[in-house]
Amino acid sequence: MLTPQQRDRISVVLVSPRNPLNIGAVARAMANFGLAHLTVVAPYEPHWREARSAIGAPELLANAREAATLAEAVRDCTLVLGTGTLTHRKPEQPVIRLDQLAPLITRELDHPADNIALIFGPEKHGLTREDLSFCHHLVEIPTDSRQPSMNLGQAAAVCLYEIAARSGVPAENPYPQTSAPTSARPTSGNLDVLADLIQQVMLASNYSPRNMQAANQHDLRLMLRRLHLTPADQRRALGLFRRILRRLQSPHRT
Amino acid sequence: MLTPQQRDRISVVLVSPRNPLNIGAVARAMANFGLAHLTVVAPYEPHWREARSAIGAPELLANAREAATLAEAVRDCTLVLGTGTLTHRKPEQPVIRLDQLAPLITRELDHPADNIALIFGPEKHGLTREDLSFCHHLVEIPTDSRQPSMNLGQAAAVCLYEIAARSGVPAENPYPQTSAPTSARPTSGNLDVLADLIQQVMLASNYSPRNMQAANQHDLRLMLRRLHLTPADQRRALGLFRRILRRLQSPHRT
Repeated sequence: MLTPQQRDRISVVLVSPRNPLNIGAVARAMANFGLAHLTVVAPYEPHWREARSAIGAPELLANAREAATLAEAVRDCTLVLGTGTLTHRKPEQPVIRLDQLAPLITRELDHPADNIALIFGPEKHGLTREDLSFCHHLVEIPTDSRQPSMNLGQAAAVCLYEIAARSGVPAENPYPQTSAPTSARPTSGNLDVLADLIQQVMLASNYSPRNMQAANQHDLRLMLRRLHLTPADQRRALGLFRRILRRLQSPHRT
Repeated sequence: MLTPQQRDRISVVLVSPRNPLNIGAVARAMANFGLAHLTVVAPYEPHWREARSAIGAPELLANAREAATLAEAVRDCTLVLGTGTLTHRKPEQPVIRLDQLAPLITRELDHPADNIALIFGPEKHGLTREDLSFCHHLVEIPTDSRQPSMNLGQAAAVCLYEIAARSGVPAENPYPQTSAPTSARPTSGNLDVLADLIQQVMLASNYSPRNMQAANQHDLRLMLRRLHLTPADQRRALGLFRRILRRLQSPHRT
């Protein structure tokens, strides 16, 4: 995860974006992933005005910089990353797959004076060979070859997610357990109480022939240990099976 | 990276999407990351028609399934994943951060019969507590706390990118994971059959007052998803509760 100081050193540059909705979507993705610095290169003015004045536009749009050229936009950056999807041209700079980008960003951020720019090209054709000549690397989003071309706002979201989630200091996982038990587990004795009760219900309901009972008991014990019941599950199961047993034993009481 | 066969076992489910542009954006992200199976739950019909007939709509929209309920949409799935961003409510199922999801998906895909559904809620409020009760896990996209809420099309792009790029066979790791495969899981529909049956037993045994029945049903659904029942557990539980129900309903038969 990036610290606020690290986020502050990453900027997003849009080269000649056309669609105001896309500009808004890029700004929203930036806000979602905690980035604040947007530069727009040679925007088509009416659309740029529209994007900035849209209802609910993220604040960072109001503070966005305008630059006449890409060269000017990335002047202060030490690592300039072009973005794109699978193409058939042969890029002239090293290509990095997006899911392998984080170590590069992290290394760069180790130097307190270095700044990173992430460049997105126009919707129609992406970054030109000329644009890419300002880039240290081309970052490739690994898309399907049958439909490689991504929407600008979605491409930005994917790239910014990857950088925010995986660059910088490794994040502490707030949810260390991926499966089940957050609360204490029942003791073996507690499980046996439940198993005995279910066993009685099995008998009272004629669940299985007598010669299967030992095998059932064994399987039940194994199963209860495999299920990671919480204390609440355990209480609930006890309550239900007690009720069932009472009804099976004296069916006419309510 | 996922193989075509693995991609074929992952579906995307949209619960009551409103905005046709968002539906189109989700479909496009699916095409970008090689997924083909979309199900839409209780769509608002005019917008759904509009999304399907939009110029340039991905082919998978024409083949999308419609379902009346989320239960129906995920009936055949063995791993149901709700998605969301940082919220202040306390989810009732285990939360996994998106960037830690891949191992879980990969394990599930090790079982050729298992199917995965990734669920996205409506634009306004996301998945409800009721929707989430059908989910084994809640997948959280790690967004900035000042602007946590993502656009639907962008959230889908981020999740599908993560899954497509990092699940399945590692793209370049020469030492693939050797963790032992766990056994196949019951489908969501199978769990609902069991839940219904237990529900009937609860009624027949007067387990709880009438005004608690909805809450019990909800808790039961959550619990069954948490327990990781094997198909054999499931069969055993069905057999036992069927027997109990029969006895409760006609106590004098043996």
